[in-house]
This record gives sequence, C-alpha cells and structure tokens, in this order.
Amino acid sequence: MVTTTAEARGQARGVVGLVPTMGFLHEGHLSLMERSAAECDLTMATLYVNPLQFDDPADLARYPADHDRDLALAEACGVDLMVVPGPEEMFPSPPLTGVTVAGIGERLEGEFRPGHMTGVATVVTRLLAALQPDRAYFGRKDAQQLAVVTRVVRDLGFPVEVVGCPLVREVDGLALSSRNVLLGRRRSKALALSRGLMGAADRFDQGERRATALEAAVRSAVPDDALEYARLCEASTMTGATMAEGETVLVAAARFGPVRIIDNVCLVADRRGASADRGVRLGHPSLIYGSE
Amino acid sequence: MVTTTAEARGQARGVVGLVPTMGFLHEGHLSLMERSAAECDLTMATLYVNPLQFDDPADLARYPADHDRDLALAEACGVDLMVVPGPEEMFPSPPLTGVTVAGIGERLEGEFRPGHMTGVATVVTRLLAALQPDRAYFGRKDAQQLAVVTRVVRDLGFPVEVVGCPLVREVDGLALSSRNVLLGRRRSKALALSRGLMGAADRFDQGERRATALEAAVRSAVPDDALEYARLCEASTMTGATMAEGETVLVAAARFGPVRIIDNVCLVADRRGASADRGVRLGHPSLIYGSE
Repeated sequence: MVTTTAEARGQARGVVGLVPTMGFLHEGHLSLMERSAAECDLTMATLYVNPLQFDDPADLARYPADHDRDLALAEACGVDLMVVPGPEEMFPSPPLTGVTVAGIGERLEGEFRPGHMTGVATVVTRLLAALQPDRAYFGRKDAQQLAVVTRVVRDLGFPVEVVGCPLVREVDGLALSSRNVLLGRRRSKALALSRGLMGAADRFDQGERRATALEAAVRSAVPDDALEYARLCEASTMTGATMAEGETVLVAAARFGPVRIIDNVCLVADRRGASADRGVRLGHPSLIYGSE
Repeated sequence: MVTTTAEARGQARGVVGLVPTMGFLHEGHLSLMERSAAECDLTMATLYVNPLQFDDPADLARYPADHDRDLALAEACGVDLMVVPGPEEMFPSPPLTGVTVAGIGERLEGEFRPGHMTGVATVVTRLLAALQPDRAYFGRKDAQQLAVVTRVVRDLGFPVEVVGCPLVREVDGLALSSRNVLLGRRRSKALALSRGLMGAADRFDQGERRATALEAAVRSAVPDDALEYARLCEASTMTGATMAEGETVLVAAARFGPVRIIDNVCLVADRRGASADRGVRLGHPSLIYGSE
C-alpha cells in the first residue's frame, strides 16, 4: 500500500481522492480519509512532513510521528494508497519555485509564521501536479489553509474539487491537532482557546454580529500573553470583517509554552438564517489524547 | 479543432504533447508543433496572449495577431487540438496566485521586465495543471524561459518532459519573433543583435572562452543605447559565468524604438569538445517576414 508519487499516479483510476497529511493521524485526518473512501473510486493519502511550511526548525524537529500506527489507521479507513515520498523524491534539491497567494496567504498565519503559507501552497501544488487527483480533502481546522488551497486550485486551473470537511474536537472542546500531544501539562490552559471561540459562537447565536464583540469573547478567555490573534474574517479571502454577515470565520491562534495551536468557528448569516459551525465533537478521548 | 482547456483534457489521450504559444505563429512555433506531432499521439497547442507576462501595457496592446492564419498553420503542422481559452476561462478574476522561481527567474529578463518571469511561470503552471500533457515544447530563443519552466516542472513535480527546441532564424540571421513585424524600418538596425551573437559564436569556435571577450563581441556590434544586456550564463541556472565551460548560453536583449528583441547562442564546451549552437537558419524569408 505504501508507494511513491510516480507509482501512485500510474494506478488504474476512476475518481481519485487525495488526503494530504503530515502524519501522526487523529480522528480529524481519519474523517477526511473515510469521506474520500466513501466518495471516490481510489483514495490516496500522503504522509509527508513538509519542511517548507515550518518557520521554526525546533517545531519541525519535535513534530510527532508514528509511522506504523498511521499506516494501520489509514488502511482501516479505506485508503487504497498511502504515498510516503522520501525527501529526495519530493525535493531532490531545495526548490527554487514558490507558489504564493497574495492577500489570502499573507495575513494571519502568513504574518505570524513567515513563509508558512507559501510552503503550504507550494507543497499542495506539487501533490496536485504529481498525483492528479479529482478531489482533495482538507479539514476546516486550518481555515486559512483551506482558503489558500481553494484559491490556488482556482487560479492555476487544477481540475480538482477541493472539499472542506468539519473540524473535529476532543470531548473537552480542544480542536484536534497532532501538536496537542506536545501540550503535556499545559493542556488545561490550552482549552482557553476553544472555550473562547465557543463563547463567541454562543454570542453569535444570541444575535451578536459585531467583529469587535466576537473577537472580545475570545480575548476574554485567553491570556494576553498566549493569544496571537483572534480575528473575524471573510471566509474565502480571509480579509478582516467588521460584521459577521455572509460567510465568515472567527480564527484564533495562541501559544502555550513552545506549542502553538489554532482554532476557529465558522459563522454564516444570510437571508436563510444564521448558523455557527463549531465542528464535530468526539464522544470519547481521541486516539492521540494521551499519547506523547 | 478549437476548444477550451476543459474539453481538451477530456480527449482520448496516449502521449499528449503541448505547444504553448501567444499566436501570430512563425516557423519557430511551427517547428515545435511538427516535432510534437511527430513524437506524440495527440498534440495540443494553446493560443493565449498572456497579460500576466507583459510588464508594458503598450507592448500588450500592439502584440500582433492573426487568428485565422494561426489555426490554418497549426492544423497543417499536425496539431490535433488548438486550445484558445478566453480571458474568462483562463483568469475569471485576476489571479492572486503567483509562481515564482528564485534566482533563475529574477535575473536578466526578470530584472528588465519586472513581473515577466512570474507571469510566464504562472501561466505555464496553469496550462500544465489544466491540460496534463506528457511533453511540453519550448523554443530555445527564450533561453531563460526554458530554464524557468524546466525548474518549475522539476520543483512542482509535474509528470511532463520539457523539450527545448532549436531557435529559428531568418535568412539574414534575425531570430524569429512575432514582434519582428513591428520593427518596420528599424529591421536592418535590429540585425546588429544577431550579428553580434554570431560574432561571439565565431570567437568561441576559435577558442575564446572568457565571458568578458564573448560579451564584448556582442557589445561591439550593438549600439550602447540599444543594448540592454549581453551576458554569458550557466544554462540551467542563468547565473553569470566567467568562462564558457560546461553548458552556457550567451543571452542578449536590445531595444530598437518601441520593439524589444532577445536572442542567444548556446555554447557548450566539455571533455567531448566544443560547439556553438546558433540555431537553425531558414532558406527563405519567414511567413511573417513582411507582414504587419
């Protein structure tokens, strides 16, 4: 089942789904794989810790990994091909080519993690170019990444449908992230971020539409020295919004010790009504809840 | 035969060759089409005047066009599908996504035509992404473009072979370019550029390897106020070379009135010997020689 990108492309096809991951899989990744397996004739997942998207070498060095577990989980979710490109296959020499997305990729994560969004856009472009899938599945936890990838696909004309899938949370609300295992004793503090966002979503449900008030709900829950940003944005462009009208997303990032986490709620208000998408909450601790 | 990118991708395939052009076809383009038709099962050519690669709106406005002649010529050369995307198909809205190539794309043309190489890399990436060819044919006249495209394909992992094809010259030595028809009475002056490069190639054949001497041979032929640059470069990186050793290319650009032309000779010197590639010279005036 494990293969290179070149071999993966040569497979008999039909509708091909792609789930790009950096491994250390959790229920968020598995939901993407299951959805692709249900919707596509062939599901490929990639496992590649992309150095281009790490602005901090220490963050890259400690990024968690469990190769054997990943393969077993992916297979159980219906992944047909697990593409595990070696560094020499992905980038035989450091790439000179960069894919940048003006505006959408420059704000927020682009500001706080210089080069991160270009690294994401470049490696996703490479996977789409090399594997030629018909659908590509991304979680909504990385809301800005989803906006960037959607725009890359549109601007560069890849014949692929980008499918955004629900964010998955722990029982206690923490958004699933492979980095959560690094939180250790800071885990309870880190819950402030999702608690703040849930509070903002509650206020939205009660009729609050002002960005200032929604952002303040996050800021009131997260210590100033931990919060990097809490911002209401227009969902497709990630430009700041003053009111939660149309499709917006309240995105936030915070740092707890060496671990940086991001989270968001999608807020939609239009003529048909209003809804706050808080994602999906697991009924049990996640696969990676207690692991390190 | 004329079609959109989406329709073109849906065709029965085999080995697919792509010849990207901006139209107003001359024998240089036709040689690419004929080669693709000879080597591939299906040949697609694109005709799209890419606004992203024009740094000067006046240059874009006066770029020559002859749609009907182009279609007839392409068909006669064995092109199976002429892809003529409208502006709304290529870029329904101005693209935010840009493909840049550090180093290779920043020098020379990148310096003298700001944004040009990013415009080229972005539109070529879009054509490769949308049309998924197996081979893509480019002329060596645009030596830096060929280096940039080759690097984009390598870095982004497109499963396509980039094929560089010989530069084609008029009987009098002028490198074929759709823009030549705009030279008018300046045509005889413009011959200085190819004359200078042929002189440099002669000196190379006589054993000269120093960049200074080879570049001086061009400068001695072209008036200072016309010449933009004459530089010996390593062929794959386009970095300046001090000696014509290995695979180098002597590239030059000059401006005659409002018309800017580029030209080059490829100089190869290794253990097997030395050769100056001056391109191919037509035995008769080109299709576009006298047209305006």
